[in-house]
Amino acid sequence: MTEHGPPPGAAAHDEGVRLRTAAVVGTGLIGTSVALALSARGVVTYLLDRDPATARTAASLGAGLAAFPPAPVDLAVLAMPPSKIAGALVEYQRAGLAEHFTDVGSVKVPAELAMRTADCDLSRYVGGHPMAGREQSGPLAADAGLFRGRPWVLTPSERTGGTVVELARQLIELCGACPVTMPAELHDRTVALTSHAPHLVSALIAGRLAQADDQQLRLAGRGLRDVTRIALGDPELWSDILRSNATAVLEVLREVADDLAVAVAALDWLGDLDPDLRRRGEEELRALLAAGVTGRGRLAERSPAQV
Amino acid sequence: MTEHGPPPGAAAHDEGVRLRTAAVVGTGLIGTSVALALSARGVVTYLLDRDPATARTAASLGAGLAAFPPAPVDLAVLAMPPSKIAGALVEYQRAGLAEHFTDVGSVKVPAELAMRTADCDLSRYVGGHPMAGREQSGPLAADAGLFRGRPWVLTPSERTGGTVVELARQLIELCGACPVTMPAELHDRTVALTSHAPHLVSALIAGRLAQADDQQLRLAGRGLRDVTRIALGDPELWSDILRSNATAVLEVLREVADDLAVAVAALDWLGDLDPDLRRRGEEELRALLAAGVTGRGRLAERSPAQV
Repeated sequence: MTEHGPPPGAAAHDEGVRLRTAAVVGTGLIGTSVALALSARGVVTYLLDRDPATARTAASLGAGLAAFPPAPVDLAVLAMPPSKIAGALVEYQRAGLAEHFTDVGSVKVPAELAMRTADCDLSRYVGGHPMAGREQSGPLAADAGLFRGRPWVLTPSERTGGTVVELARQLIELCGACPVTMPAELHDRTVALTSHAPHLVSALIAGRLAQADDQQLRLAGRGLRDVTRIALGDPELWSDILRSNATAVLEVLREVADDLAVAVAALDWLGDLDPDLRRRGEEELRALLAAGVTGRGRLAERSPAQV
Repeated sequence: MTEHGPPPGAAAHDEGVRLRTAAVVGTGLIGTSVALALSARGVVTYLLDRDPATARTAASLGAGLAAFPPAPVDLAVLAMPPSKIAGALVEYQRAGLAEHFTDVGSVKVPAELAMRTADCDLSRYVGGHPMAGREQSGPLAADAGLFRGRPWVLTPSERTGGTVVELARQLIELCGACPVTMPAELHDRTVALTSHAPHLVSALIAGRLAQADDQQLRLAGRGLRDVTRIALGDPELWSDILRSNATAVLEVLREVADDLAVAVAALDWLGDLDPDLRRRGEEELRALLAAGVTGRGRLAERSPAQV
């Protein structure tokens, strides 16, 4: 950070705004990781959690001070399941925790709708979502480097003021992440496709293993481990996320269910006496597998080093 | 390997049998990896492939000699898609390629049924399946260490002789893998659950990405990469595997489809006006996620270092 003033001609919202003090509400994995990154970069950071012991644990890791700030901080980061964010904004705007607010919730539209109903000051709030996480939860799993190089979505609305966006950008930069701005609706549809629906399907595959016997599990390889790893995520948090984004997740899941029905029919046809049906089964199956290679290839293209 | 004779009292099938010469038919990823491991441990290994250039590529990597052996080798390893194995056994038993045969196919029952119909010498054959692989294919992706520490299933039948089992065990040991003996039926049901059905579902999730736009894919994280990684597997090989194990895979996929229908209904109920239905939706969702944690936890238990 520089101690100079803004260059002449800088946009109005840029003028003199510097993120010097922050609060993190909710010191789980993501909140504590944010706080660790901010504290490491010299931002005075206060830590709040509905469970004070959790905030003290985060403080003991060097994430900040487990206390309500003596004066409103520049920016508060609400780090809690999506369904809790609007209520927390109401509560902490009233309590004067911070001048400006953002959050790290995985779903944006329902929280913003609830905020509008609750008559929050939306000029001082911008929705955010860092695209990073781990299947572990809690402050002890936190990592100041969790967001490094990852996209961090901001979803400003027509009511969002310039100052809170600038502060949120500084937050993102201090965490080493890359800001991406998009409408809340597009964000929610996107994460339904890239995160929420895959999470649920991964959980369904993992659920099939609950009844398997040890001899069967002994044959499991890295493929199965990878497919099911995210299924270890906290069911409470994930049911909140899926609930909050139900409409968009449903859309993707219905498409997956349709494809699955095609796959089941195709496998069924393979055992049919009619050679035309057998051939059609083979073609359908190969087409589904080929679409998978194409889709996965698009991920690999975007970041070949991480295939 | 020792140069001493067998200890007195060793089982009949053990007597003096040593794997000194081998042939690998099919020099793709798995076949070439086997051949590299055998050659490195001093077994004279011959390489055959329907595409002679592929066998020569494997030979150039040090996997062995790209030629038909001058006299029958001790053990031939058939390394090809499951539907080709029975035909290859007929062909190469007739041609006198080897005294004994095994294979590395992912599905065991249909191949063995076909062998019985074709009247092969089943006393000199034992089904095998190393539980290792990569999403890449071909000899250039091969690795002598691919099987190290991995289970390698053998599925002897009542017709299988002792000598071929002993030779296959030596093959497994030379590859650094761990032999696991189980009936062919149990093997096929197990891999349907731990590998084949997860592969297809992973391909369906990956297929959903084929139509996504770049901005959406930019938000994809490690979770999605892991869930869809195996979808990069060769569609030709995988459609053969799924076709060969269709009945067992169908059984798992139908269970997954049932769970998916429950998930879709649960998400749908969350938006219902009836609070009882909303509550039931939440409960169903949480139960599916919790079953996923339990099932995945069982994998982690078995090998905590590889979570």
